Amino acid sequence: MGKQAIGVVGLAVMGRNLALNIESRGHAVSVYNRSREKTDELIAEYPDKKLVPAFTLEDFVESLEKPRRILLMVKAGEPTDATIASLKPLLDKGDILIDGGNTHFTDTIRRNQELAKAGLHFIGTGVSGGEEGALKGPSIMPGGQRDAYDLVAPILTEIAAKAPDGEPCVAYMGPDGAGHFVKMVHNGIEYGDMQLIAESYAVLKQVVGLSNEELAKVYTEWNEGELDSYLIEITSKIFKKKDEETGKDLVDVILDRAAQKGTGKWTSQNALDLGAPLPLITEAVFARVLSSLKTQRVAASKVLEGPAAKPLGAERDAFIESVRRALYFSKVISYAQGFAQLRAASEEYKWDLDYGTIAKIFRAGCIIRARFLQKITDAYTKDKAIANLLLDPYFRDIAKNYQSALREVVIAAINAGVPVPAFASAVAYFDAYRSERLPANLVQAQRDFFGAHTFERTDKPGSFHANWS
Amino acid sequence: MGKQAIGVVGLAVMGRNLALNIESRGHAVSVYNRSREKTDELIAEYPDKKLVPAFTLEDFVESLEKPRRILLMVKAGEPTDATIASLKPLLDKGDILIDGGNTHFTDTIRRNQELAKAGLHFIGTGVSGGEEGALKGPSIMPGGQRDAYDLVAPILTEIAAKAPDGEPCVAYMGPDGAGHFVKMVHNGIEYGDMQLIAESYAVLKQVVGLSNEELAKVYTEWNEGELDSYLIEITSKIFKKKDEETGKDLVDVILDRAAQKGTGKWTSQNALDLGAPLPLITEAVFARVLSSLKTQRVAASKVLEGPAAKPLGAERDAFIESVRRALYFSKVISYAQGFAQLRAASEEYKWDLDYGTIAKIFRAGCIIRARFLQKITDAYTKDKAIANLLLDPYFRDIAKNYQSALREVVIAAINAGVPVPAFASAVAYFDAYRSERLPANLVQAQRDFFGAHTFERTDKPGSFHANWS
Repeated sequence: MGKQAIGVVGLAVMGRNLALNIESRGHAVSVYNRSREKTDELIAEYPDKKLVPAFTLEDFVESLEKPRRILLMVKAGEPTDATIASLKPLLDKGDILIDGGNTHFTDTIRRNQELAKAGLHFIGTGVSGGEEGALKGPSIMPGGQRDAYDLVAPILTEIAAKAPDGEPCVAYMGPDGAGHFVKMVHNGIEYGDMQLIAESYAVLKQVVGLSNEELAKVYTEWNEGELDSYLIEITSKIFKKKDEETGKDLVDVILDRAAQKGTGKWTSQNALDLGAPLPLITEAVFARVLSSLKTQRVAASKVLEGPAAKPLGAERDAFIESVRRALYFSKVISYAQGFAQLRAASEEYKWDLDYGTIAKIFRAGCIIRARFLQKITDAYTKDKAIANLLLDPYFRDIAKNYQSALREVVIAAINAGVPVPAFASAVAYFDAYRSERLPANLVQAQRDFFGAHTFERTDKPGSFHANWS
Repeated sequence: MGKQAIGVVGLAVMGRNLALNIESRGHAVSVYNRSREKTDELIAEYPDKKLVPAFTLEDFVESLEKPRRILLMVKAGEPTDATIASLKPLLDKGDILIDGGNTHFTDTIRRNQELAKAGLHFIGTGVSGGEEGALKGPSIMPGGQRDAYDLVAPILTEIAAKAPDGEPCVAYMGPDGAGHFVKMVHNGIEYGDMQLIAESYAVLKQVVGLSNEELAKVYTEWNEGELDSYLIEITSKIFKKKDEETGKDLVDVILDRAAQKGTGKWTSQNALDLGAPLPLITEAVFARVLSSLKTQRVAASKVLEGPAAKPLGAERDAFIESVRRALYFSKVISYAQGFAQLRAASEEYKWDLDYGTIAKIFRAGCIIRARFLQKITDAYTKDKAIANLLLDPYFRDIAKNYQSALREVVIAAINAGVPVPAFASAVAYFDAYRSERLPANLVQAQRDFFGAHTFERTDKPGSFHANWS
């Protein structure tokens, strides 16, 4: 009996779909799950596929070609550590473990170091695209030993999504935790995108008064231009969907309590650690949290009044176009922050990330796939060292031409009492980033006044303390 | 030779000033420092004070009455662990270690548990007020074993600041990490206050065009009303201060790069962990970070244009009053968020925090001391279970009467291109918190669409998944 080139441990939906994806490219795949039911089910459902079941880790490891390639698709955290601990004694030097779970990058750095001591390779890889992506082609963000990556690259390239130009959405991100880090920031950006779209929806509904039918039309149109993206596409479809039970528009039946699985939170916490300003995504994370306080909000809505509704002022169609521009420019600002975080991380963790390539592999397979990502790749192709995407000529033009629309929309929302935390944060970031002088001199004066924390001067280098009293 | 009731380990400025404070209340104090120079200096400087030097930890421990009360004023983190490890074998059951450093509350929880196993008490206490507060009367926030607190309470009460009504600014906060947690949130709130004042300064300077002399006058006046507080007081003084070297106004000579020591960051990271919305303080933390990117900002200011200046529109004096109201209402919103975080923490860590008492001990000694804190104590006295301070009648009235001013100021700033991230975040939080319906239903629809994450319905309980395609 021949041995397989790759095996998958963990046959929940993502693991089994990745196994099926690999098999569909002509590879026999060893499969193992801690409880054998999942393995039996998979084999029963696909009896004709080249899936080779194993019911002990020993048999599973034995069934693989050397160097072994083992894709771990188990729960992040403790279960991943436990699986690695069970596998470790069965492996040989040069074998490659690939963690495709939703792992915090610091765990990946630790595991990579620990396993390296035993001569084992450890690839931590982001896999984005959900169940369907896993089956048909996800965006894949692997990090770890470069030479180990080269040994798994052919298979990862086969199973990855293909961008519109045919390029596979997979690339080596960098050492140890780089892959899981990029996936984390991808998810943070996803939080930002979703909150911005939600705010555009709130403004169009509450300020302009659009119906769901009209909203579907607006997002469909927007999806044909600069905003062309998976999230805008599904948004347009959501507004057309009827509730099977009540016949109402489903979106109106869905409770307004947004849930989360924590990767947005990780992104914000890491940005705080790195000292990389990430206010927009963080506002998006807090917006989800605040939405979940539904009971408090309902109580508050009865006692805290807002402003009286004001007439729109601008033409309706012109205002809708302003919302589109506000959304696009805010999205640019959000990505500028996210990619600046990647740069800060690359320096801090010594990863030498390739930002243009990262934008490239986001172009298909993943949730934030969008036409606009090409502009980011273009910007980094022109100037790999650019400190912030807002400084690139294309994005500078967007800033120049769209900022008045963003200001107009935020002002209209504030006047109407419609909360737009991410839009408003985008304006503040833009205005702060382009400020030669910020009022932080006062903050430094206060800190020196009450805590002798010293300050720098505008006219010469050094640290100074004033005698304030 | 008699033994002392208390000893201080660590004689950097905070430790030595606390030792002097205790001594000034009539207590002899044992003092120890790892390197003996600091001890010698202190004794040489104050030969007539009842400071009893020890040059080995053994002598130091031997010099104390039992149960021993030892105030640790060493660097947070590893040095604190090292000091505890050295002391531990010298101590007896029932002795009390008090960590007055700037310690992360999770370290305090850990140390409290570890030492409890050896029968030792561990109090983690926030100490706010800087060098001068330490010497003359800080605000003190102790957490740990209740019975251990009772044994140190008399001395802490003597050295604490006194509120205007004479009450000492110290109280038992709760078990293990409660004291250091409250201090952390105090510092987060301080970041918010300072950023809000900085934004009011930017608006008054850039939108209204006030000179430093006029600014000093405005903040002096504001300090006589609702905004009466230490930070407003020192702000008014800052604008009057001349640079001794150049004769210019010092505030204009100070570089606009705000530094930080990380406690604001901790507060935001913890709020993200707790799922407690803290957007304003987090915007303040990111504003400091962004200010520090001075080189990038200067480069960006040359290529990213803002809006053309617009005339003020409103009367100048009326607009200044609007800025005052915007500042006060934003401050209310920031404290509402901070105290909601305290509530979330109290539930999560089972601390049973007393919010009214916390506001009370902030009234003097600490950096955020302010007349307004009495209103918070009053609110919790009326209703200890109130979910959010904005629901209290006094703060509801502020919201009702001041929100139009806040909206006006944010809009004026956005129109002028002046960044006001914290003011803008305050408006967004207020409008979101009082929204019965937020656009989070769309976020849930998207999550269910791309990831089958399910949603709740408005018309019945349960989790649902739609067949979107």
